[in-house]
Amino acid sequence: MKLLLKIAYDGAAYHGFQYQPNALSVQEVLTACVSKAFSVECTVTGCSRTDAGVHALGFCAAVEPKDEGLKGEKWCTVPPSKVHRLLNMHLPGDIAVTGAAVVDDSFHPRYSAHSKEYVYRICDSVYPDPFKRSRAYHIKRRLTDEQIKIMNEFGKILLGRHDFSGFMAQGSSVKDTVRTLYRLEVKRVSEFEVTLTVSGDGFLYNMVRIITGTLLDAAFGRITSEDVKNALEKCDRSRTGFTVPAEGLYLNRVEYGEITEFFAD
Amino acid sequence: MKLLLKIAYDGAAYHGFQYQPNALSVQEVLTACVSKAFSVECTVTGCSRTDAGVHALGFCAAVEPKDEGLKGEKWCTVPPSKVHRLLNMHLPGDIAVTGAAVVDDSFHPRYSAHSKEYVYRICDSVYPDPFKRSRAYHIKRRLTDEQIKIMNEFGKILLGRHDFSGFMAQGSSVKDTVRTLYRLEVKRVSEFEVTLTVSGDGFLYNMVRIITGTLLDAAFGRITSEDVKNALEKCDRSRTGFTVPAEGLYLNRVEYGEITEFFAD
Repeated sequence: MKLLLKIAYDGAAYHGFQYQPNALSVQEVLTACVSKAFSVECTVTGCSRTDAGVHALGFCAAVEPKDEGLKGEKWCTVPPSKVHRLLNMHLPGDIAVTGAAVVDDSFHPRYSAHSKEYVYRICDSVYPDPFKRSRAYHIKRRLTDEQIKIMNEFGKILLGRHDFSGFMAQGSSVKDTVRTLYRLEVKRVSEFEVTLTVSGDGFLYNMVRIITGTLLDAAFGRITSEDVKNALEKCDRSRTGFTVPAEGLYLNRVEYGEITEFFAD
Repeated sequence: MKLLLKIAYDGAAYHGFQYQPNALSVQEVLTACVSKAFSVECTVTGCSRTDAGVHALGFCAAVEPKDEGLKGEKWCTVPPSKVHRLLNMHLPGDIAVTGAAVVDDSFHPRYSAHSKEYVYRICDSVYPDPFKRSRAYHIKRRLTDEQIKIMNEFGKILLGRHDFSGFMAQGSSVKDTVRTLYRLEVKRVSEFEVTLTVSGDGFLYNMVRIITGTLLDAAFGRITSEDVKNALEKCDRSRTGFTVPAEGLYLNRVEYGEITEFFAD
């Protein structure tokens, strides 16, 4: 058995989810905490890397004992619905377990995922919001309804199955750059906040941040719909927009076909 | 002339608004920043002390030159609507100016206030929320609709003009303990958050936090309506509830009769 955890974290203090030798990661903290809480040395596998400063609301990570011999054993005696209580006592305040489920040994939080949903938060007040610092991208000028409409229109061009290498940061070594976007929606959620929600079967390196920057460039008239179509057809990064900062990005949800419920009571 | 600033701050790093000799206060940081930004040594007077860790969304503070001789002068040449741009360049990320207005020399941000509104945020998810740490009080169990209804019913007892000394922390030296509450409302604002909003002509030391604790005790059946009535009539602190932590409290708004508009563009 493996234990699948749903976790939320404020990424401001971390260099992403993935373990790094010279910087603090969520994975490193989580691995130490679950090992201590279960009194078994564990490995933790995430559903995604995330960049330094990126946040998560519904990140999924699988936990299993490091010792191969223990994998068949019932190494976790806490019922899944109580796991959050045990682990949150050990975790720092910027990481929380919000639910847990038992999954098969063959389950992989990354490869078993059907889709992922990200949210990008844009704060468009003329002054900064102290409660959104490092949690949203502050653009200092208002987005009009017309501009939000343009962002949604440009977003529609990206829906479906495309080679998104024009929306990938340089330096990525991934070979298959074809991804399918299921949904892209830009909307005003409060007086001074606009969010972009995007879901797909997977995302390339910096893809959500480049999509968001491209749609903002479109809103401000710096990019045309021809540019976006060309960027897709010709896989041309020079036709797409800037990369918005990590601080506005949230991994919101991961969908797995068979795992529909996480327990917490 | 004085300049009246509307400010928001995340109070987590500060020992309240009011200057203290041995701890960092919002007033100390604000005074240094405005003096530097205007190139005039200034004094800053707040609409309220706030406790360590308390936050503000619509705090008001008056700025004037320290040098009496300058008070008649036009010491601030920046139009009020642009003041936020200048000051936010100097302020740290957890304090922001959200608007400004010019007021008479006779104006006092505390004594000229007609009413103040506070909001207390209660997070009632079973697990902690990393994005609400130090910004809401986490009670770890759900508040039912029935319990929210009870809190509102008990809140009605407190409306109007009363001696609130039973709702004041020990050690306060204030003599007039009569205050008038205009409004008290408890409501669910999201799946895992309930807020208490209270407005009145003024508040005693810890009064909002003791009111909130009393209504939570009422919700959980630890205090009766007779206790609350007795606490008011007999000015008896032993009949009221516990003091909820500072981290959930926000000074939301201050109303001044004549000053109705703050400028920011």
